Amino acid sequence: MNSDEFRQAAKQLTDYIADYIEGLRTRSVVPDVEPGYLNELVPDAPPEQGEPWINLFNDIEPVIMKGMTHWHSPRFHAYFPTANSYPAICGDMLSTALACIGFTWNAAPSCTELEMRMMDWLAQMLGLPDYFHFKNGGPGGGVIQTTASESTLIAILGARTKILQKYGLDNKITNNDDDDDENGENKDSKRYDLLGRMVAYTSNQSHSSVEKASMLSATRIRLLPVNDEDFSMDVDALRRRIVADHERGLIPMIVIATLGTTNTCAFDDLYKIGQLCSEFEIWLHVDAAYAGSAFVCPELRHYMNGIEYATSFTVNPHKWLLVNFDCNAFWVKDKSLIEDAFNVNPVYLKHENQNRILDYRHWQIPLGRRFRSLKMWFVFRSYGVDGLQKHIRKQIELAQLFGQLLKTDERFELIDEIRMGLVCFRLRGSNEMNEKLLQTINHGREIFLTPSKVNDKFIIRFAICARTTNENDVFYSWSLIRQYAEHLFDL
Amino acid sequence: MNSDEFRQAAKQLTDYIADYIEGLRTRSVVPDVEPGYLNELVPDAPPEQGEPWINLFNDIEPVIMKGMTHWHSPRFHAYFPTANSYPAICGDMLSTALACIGFTWNAAPSCTELEMRMMDWLAQMLGLPDYFHFKNGGPGGGVIQTTASESTLIAILGARTKILQKYGLDNKITNNDDDDDENGENKDSKRYDLLGRMVAYTSNQSHSSVEKASMLSATRIRLLPVNDEDFSMDVDALRRRIVADHERGLIPMIVIATLGTTNTCAFDDLYKIGQLCSEFEIWLHVDAAYAGSAFVCPELRHYMNGIEYATSFTVNPHKWLLVNFDCNAFWVKDKSLIEDAFNVNPVYLKHENQNRILDYRHWQIPLGRRFRSLKMWFVFRSYGVDGLQKHIRKQIELAQLFGQLLKTDERFELIDEIRMGLVCFRLRGSNEMNEKLLQTINHGREIFLTPSKVNDKFIIRFAICARTTNENDVFYSWSLIRQYAEHLFDL
Repeated sequence: MNSDEFRQAAKQLTDYIADYIEGLRTRSVVPDVEPGYLNELVPDAPPEQGEPWINLFNDIEPVIMKGMTHWHSPRFHAYFPTANSYPAICGDMLSTALACIGFTWNAAPSCTELEMRMMDWLAQMLGLPDYFHFKNGGPGGGVIQTTASESTLIAILGARTKILQKYGLDNKITNNDDDDDENGENKDSKRYDLLGRMVAYTSNQSHSSVEKASMLSATRIRLLPVNDEDFSMDVDALRRRIVADHERGLIPMIVIATLGTTNTCAFDDLYKIGQLCSEFEIWLHVDAAYAGSAFVCPELRHYMNGIEYATSFTVNPHKWLLVNFDCNAFWVKDKSLIEDAFNVNPVYLKHENQNRILDYRHWQIPLGRRFRSLKMWFVFRSYGVDGLQKHIRKQIELAQLFGQLLKTDERFELIDEIRMGLVCFRLRGSNEMNEKLLQTINHGREIFLTPSKVNDKFIIRFAICARTTNENDVFYSWSLIRQYAEHLFDL
Repeated sequence: MNSDEFRQAAKQLTDYIADYIEGLRTRSVVPDVEPGYLNELVPDAPPEQGEPWINLFNDIEPVIMKGMTHWHSPRFHAYFPTANSYPAICGDMLSTALACIGFTWNAAPSCTELEMRMMDWLAQMLGLPDYFHFKNGGPGGGVIQTTASESTLIAILGARTKILQKYGLDNKITNNDDDDDENGENKDSKRYDLLGRMVAYTSNQSHSSVEKASMLSATRIRLLPVNDEDFSMDVDALRRRIVADHERGLIPMIVIATLGTTNTCAFDDLYKIGQLCSEFEIWLHVDAAYAGSAFVCPELRHYMNGIEYATSFTVNPHKWLLVNFDCNAFWVKDKSLIEDAFNVNPVYLKHENQNRILDYRHWQIPLGRRFRSLKMWFVFRSYGVDGLQKHIRKQIELAQLFGQLLKTDERFELIDEIRMGLVCFRLRGSNEMNEKLLQTINHGREIFLTPSKVNDKFIIRFAICARTTNENDVFYSWSLIRQYAEHLFDL
């Protein structure tokens, strides 16, 4: 494909994309395929000779769309939203085409510097504490990670390094067995002894990625119980556990609090947890992957009361803030806390400006990184703060609308109050009935919802996801859910 | 930005991108900016109201390009190549617009299935062992990761899990202190004892990401010496180390061998290392991040002699195979080896097809994932196997050409033979002279090269990077390097 062919191809694709997005309401949300469907559609070997663009373009519908779950259908209500907006697509196009790898400042100065600026813009929009802003010259700041999973892992690793340092060690596992410190103690044994004593705490409602991060980092984790009424972490249980662990010689290291859990959009009490962390000098990491975007609206910031105790904070603009995946935002109070955890400095990455500004390679697990702040820049400027607030408020209103509809029918029950854009509900009846209902709804392929389980109750999650979902879509979904329930159970 | 505005914007951007890429030879490779340059160009707060597209578009040159290091300039010879091709840009556009998150098969069937197919295509193109192909129905297969850093980390974690399982444990750190096994032993103490005894091995020439992965996973690592003549791992030293560790009660767990190191494109002897790993039942992970793409050419496959011993293998199509970042390819001999390391199964991700096909979320660190195989599909079909081979062969020829030019001038010396697209050289003289030369070259901003250090010698790396680099660019760079050297040192 030469440059003229590219001009043609990318313009044809642009129209296809706009038609696709605007036409999503006419497609079934869930595809009608069985595992293995694609094997008959794509040959099992690559072509020897190149093919013209039109062959590729003509295969998009019969191969890709045939097996696509349309996340941006206005009737997609599964999981949590993933962002999609036109300015983000443009920003990403430019990023792809520049194809610079901004691991150091020198490797692409605009990539590092725009990211710093955008992380400051976002911190300001969300009302985060001053210490997270670069512009305050403080030791803290923000970075774009791929996902919240990585941000949580990085927070755990940062907390671990901090404790190792407290005991005169670093994160680097020495190459030499006989590397004793001045007291004659072997550093490796000391390190593994400490690792085995460090403990992370989170609630049993936190995201699966928290448990995964503990597995990856070999960190002992406590999944604490939650309060019955709102599924927030039981802070008294947390205190008891921390005290007990401390007394047993373990080292309480980090608490991962969630603002907006995946199951029910529950909010942990940051203020109480923060006081506890402060008392015991424990790292407080706040996972606001979904709900954090809502803090662009000042009237919703009461949900993060206590944020001033956070050592690190993460939110996914690629969920609810119209910046396409991947774009996870992560802030840390003092950048040395994470730079120390990852610092490897080969000669081939050294440059003469490395002490004058930051190198983001020390802030993340991979070395390579895309120019992702372009998407943020384009989205934040296209929408303005006002446009982003309108988006959040509209989605919350739609969730409230669905909740009102649900309350009109006493055969259904709401699980907890409605927070943000998520409604959790169930048929009054057995778990089996609800499982059957959900399965039937999704087999219908017109709308898509996902399950969860709290207190052994099978529940159905209805999330407002697509940017284009409107009142009519909510009415449509509600009528469909009622009909399925009536038909299935002869209600 | 509505859909009509998007059509206009994306088409304008398409032309801008084509003009940019075709016009790269006229731009300085390295930008003329100092750290902090962007602060004056981008306001410190986001706009309250949205702005029109044209404002954004008009800022690309004065803000972004002003501080851009042009990785796709034909005269960019730093680091290693990062891929950029027109069909990849198109594939990525479609991926961004679909914005589906393919963590499970159900969440986007085409995303999972095309990836499986493309990983098979690539395995076939590179001549990898049959056991890495899905289509052979074996337990092995491939996945797209973000970077080789993650693939290495995943291999280490997989190897760790395998050892834990051998001792009746899993990767999950129990929540309950009193969780004793049937023999009354505490599982947590046993786990940390084992972790402290596991050892990873690699050469002192392997990529910094290997050492980083050991820090992240808290794994003890040995950086082994290399052979003087070709910088390949000293396999005798490896054997001695493994035997000694084994005798001391440590557990030799994984060897990370490199095909094409970053410093000098050195190749470890896979065959010898593989035999050793087989003898001691050690996981062999092969990092061919850069050089692996070259195996599309059968005449270069002798460099991976011994690949049949590999437990896992990784290559970056986003480096040398024209698929834009991010696209790291990772294969494992038996998928349960890595699925077991990461398996967390919350209800909200369960689906009825999960035992009929794979869910890639168990193969990676993050939960979310883009539809990255679209880029591979578009590139492999646009170029065909033939086109990809031509690309690799041309870049190797250009490196050879540079080497020939260098050999005509005895004031310079080649470091080792030229392998793949990398030439390592230096001025015959002190390290300081070579540092000064490199700094002056890069300050000239017309070409961009990076340093390395082997055996305490400061060397200069000249990598053939851009898809569009041609003979004239090589002649140009050579004349510039000579002139700088003559001018600086009055040679």
